[in-house]
Amino acid sequence: MALHFTSEQRLDDVLERNFVLGEIPGTLWTPASAPAPLILLGHPPLGLHRMYPRLVARAQHAAADGFAAATIELPGSGDRPRWLAAQQVRADLHRARKAGEPVSDEIIDALTLPLVDKAVPEWQAALNALLSLPDIGGPVGYSGGVISIGIRLAAVEPRIVAACLFAGSFVPRAIFEEARQVTIPLHVLLQWDDEGNDRQAALDLFDAFGSKEKSLHANMGGHTGVPQFAGEGAARFFTRHLK
Amino acid sequence: MALHFTSEQRLDDVLERNFVLGEIPGTLWTPASAPAPLILLGHPPLGLHRMYPRLVARAQHAAADGFAAATIELPGSGDRPRWLAAQQVRADLHRARKAGEPVSDEIIDALTLPLVDKAVPEWQAALNALLSLPDIGGPVGYSGGVISIGIRLAAVEPRIVAACLFAGSFVPRAIFEEARQVTIPLHVLLQWDDEGNDRQAALDLFDAFGSKEKSLHANMGGHTGVPQFAGEGAARFFTRHLK
Repeated sequence: MALHFTSEQRLDDVLERNFVLGEIPGTLWTPASAPAPLILLGHPPLGLHRMYPRLVARAQHAAADGFAAATIELPGSGDRPRWLAAQQVRADLHRARKAGEPVSDEIIDALTLPLVDKAVPEWQAALNALLSLPDIGGPVGYSGGVISIGIRLAAVEPRIVAACLFAGSFVPRAIFEEARQVTIPLHVLLQWDDEGNDRQAALDLFDAFGSKEKSLHANMGGHTGVPQFAGEGAARFFTRHLK
Repeated sequence: MALHFTSEQRLDDVLERNFVLGEIPGTLWTPASAPAPLILLGHPPLGLHRMYPRLVARAQHAAADGFAAATIELPGSGDRPRWLAAQQVRADLHRARKAGEPVSDEIIDALTLPLVDKAVPEWQAALNALLSLPDIGGPVGYSGGVISIGIRLAAVEPRIVAACLFAGSFVPRAIFEEARQVTIPLHVLLQWDDEGNDRQAALDLFDAFGSKEKSLHANMGGHTGVPQFAGEGAARFFTRHLK
């Protein structure tokens, strides 16, 4: 898939360029120093517009450490065509939660597996295009977002050499098995009191990763309460592994 | 108890002074900048001589961050009078482990509670003496060593404002209850595959701490395999809370 830049602006020392990859919107942030290692910025399926303030803050931190950063829209999110099946499953999930029912394995699978199956090849296509740009070198790290996408990418994409994963969403049993195939260094963030996450499942997942170097960083607070110092720890993880 | 210096030497920019506090040997390391905040260096009951290489390395890192560091010998260790009851319990523990038996609550209590009861007032006496020295300011942090001593100190000693604890040894049920009284910021290190430690008990202990700010940092490897980057994370924790 070809990558075409559609707009650009300078944010101090960082060049922000929007692009389309085929029909998929995305954004690339590059620091003054080039070629730079690349961090892929994962995000939840809420749309790039809504996620922009957090993404640009992460990209600016990455640039300050000498990294380029890039992200693409997830299938069914933002300006991409609606994905009715996914909307239906999300509605089922909200209904189950509101009713105080346990979230079934069927809902978790339906919510996550089709998204992973669609998104992962798109991120790999983005990687192909981005790594052919003169200002992007390697190596590549993956950070945050839907953890199941991060696990699959870490397991199947050899150009990703380190990943920072946020244990903040349900992980299907099938992806749990893929976690055993992951061998790259991992930095795993866990919010100890995440209301939407099963703590024991997150600890079991951390245990399952096949990586020899993996660290779990658990902090207090709910899903969106990751403290600033935890973000700094993740930044140092990438500096250790991508430089 | 009065503190008397018995010897001193310079290690680059760090002044290392041995002292006796009453009959308890100890060491104080001070950086060039004074008065400095103080980090109390906990250690396992193996004797200060045997622990010296690791303690001086920790003290030099602390000094590089602008902290003084101090430690005292534990009851029954090193050059202090033998503590026959403690030796007996430790022999019981080794026997149980060699035989592959589970370590009973009775052994854990007998191993730990008398040590905590004796050691904590000694560390508080050391704090009294050290804080009256002109080159020691505040605030005070506590780092490492027997976690039950750290928990009791964090719970009862208001001059300690932050603690880095190593979840690496058995914690009696009574100390577990004291953990609920701890409210200072905590940085807890856990070696995921620590052969001498019960991982689930360590996770339950982390959950029990009453502190609003507490972070768990789990890394791969056994009891003595704490990676270097984990030590650096602990150092940044103290810089956040003691400066």
